[in-house]
Amino acid sequence: MQDLSTIGMEKGLLYETIITTKNSEGIPNAAPIGVTCKNNSEIVLYLFEGTHTFQNIKSNGNFIVNILKDPMVFVESTVGELSSDYFKSYKNGFYIKNTDAFFSAIVTSVKEVKRDDKIGKSKMVVVNASVNEIIIKNKSIEPLNRAIFAIIESLVYSSRINIVDDKTASQYLEQINEMSRLVHRVGGKEHKKAMNEILKHLKKD
Amino acid sequence: MQDLSTIGMEKGLLYETIITTKNSEGIPNAAPIGVTCKNNSEIVLYLFEGTHTFQNIKSNGNFIVNILKDPMVFVESTVGELSSDYFKSYKNGFYIKNTDAFFSAIVTSVKEVKRDDKIGKSKMVVVNASVNEIIIKNKSIEPLNRAIFAIIESLVYSSRINIVDDKTASQYLEQINEMSRLVHRVGGKEHKKAMNEILKHLKKD
Repeated sequence: MQDLSTIGMEKGLLYETIITTKNSEGIPNAAPIGVTCKNNSEIVLYLFEGTHTFQNIKSNGNFIVNILKDPMVFVESTVGELSSDYFKSYKNGFYIKNTDAFFSAIVTSVKEVKRDDKIGKSKMVVVNASVNEIIIKNKSIEPLNRAIFAIIESLVYSSRINIVDDKTASQYLEQINEMSRLVHRVGGKEHKKAMNEILKHLKKD
Repeated sequence: MQDLSTIGMEKGLLYETIITTKNSEGIPNAAPIGVTCKNNSEIVLYLFEGTHTFQNIKSNGNFIVNILKDPMVFVESTVGELSSDYFKSYKNGFYIKNTDAFFSAIVTSVKEVKRDDKIGKSKMVVVNASVNEIIIKNKSIEPLNRAIFAIIESLVYSSRINIVDDKTASQYLEQINEMSRLVHRVGGKEHKKAMNEILKHLKKD
């Protein structure tokens, strides 16, 4: 079973996942990483070059993608180190014990790119990988995609924008634009269409 | 089958749903409404008194809660009127054709409250209702809860807060505080714990 659609991942969407890797000493690492579904069996990651995740992926040529929604796993792996209790070994790697599903992936290409966004220039690496084995632990899996949330966020702001003062309204508008960028980065066709409707509606007012 | 846990709704969490009602002429209405799961068979809504949804609920004593993620349904029912193609009749009401699940609910009490938040005073109505019948249309249902999104949003901001200028950092902090309020309003115990970890981590820096 190697088809990403079995765990609800759709072509073109970016999902929030936790990637587990191990270093040359065999120590596991977990990090929150966005994974773009290129097609049913291939994914793409954008990584910062200096990170443990990239160093481990480069030296091992493989990694594990965990599909889960446990908030503490996201927090611990972002603001510090995920406690070792969370890891469970699987073949020559590790997955996260309470994950809803996970899959192993094998690197097919690594390419350096320069990214230039509003928080500055940075050296990024584009990693292409093919899906090796998918393991489902929990039947009701839904990989985390932020597009529908960004749309709801924008609807909340847009429904209040006419009843607040000008300064707040312009902050709301900025927030909606930020959400629109997010939707275009992580969402599917229907999400983008919905977001464009919101922007069109705001221009009418 | 009247147990909300069959559609993934957990006690204490608030979910983003679309509520369908009909007016005295039999015309269907759809509106995005937050539904709090009080226990396995009871829900609570906070509604503005002047809305069609509340007027229809008051006169009929019942309504239908649609559990779905279609972004266009959220957008159309918020910024305008949901196109009539979306409605399908069910007993003496309507549900949304492409919903993942829906349930009918019967009002058990209505209470007026005054709400006083940062966008002003408003007259709200607290509607308690009991779940009547649950219909599942799509096996992989996950009701929309914004807590995990707010946590990921906060993690994105917190990981950038030390590399941006002071003005941007204070905007990020404001955004994280907004997300924290959201988590405490809509999330479960684990979400609140995770959010508190983020705030604790930010104070350390």
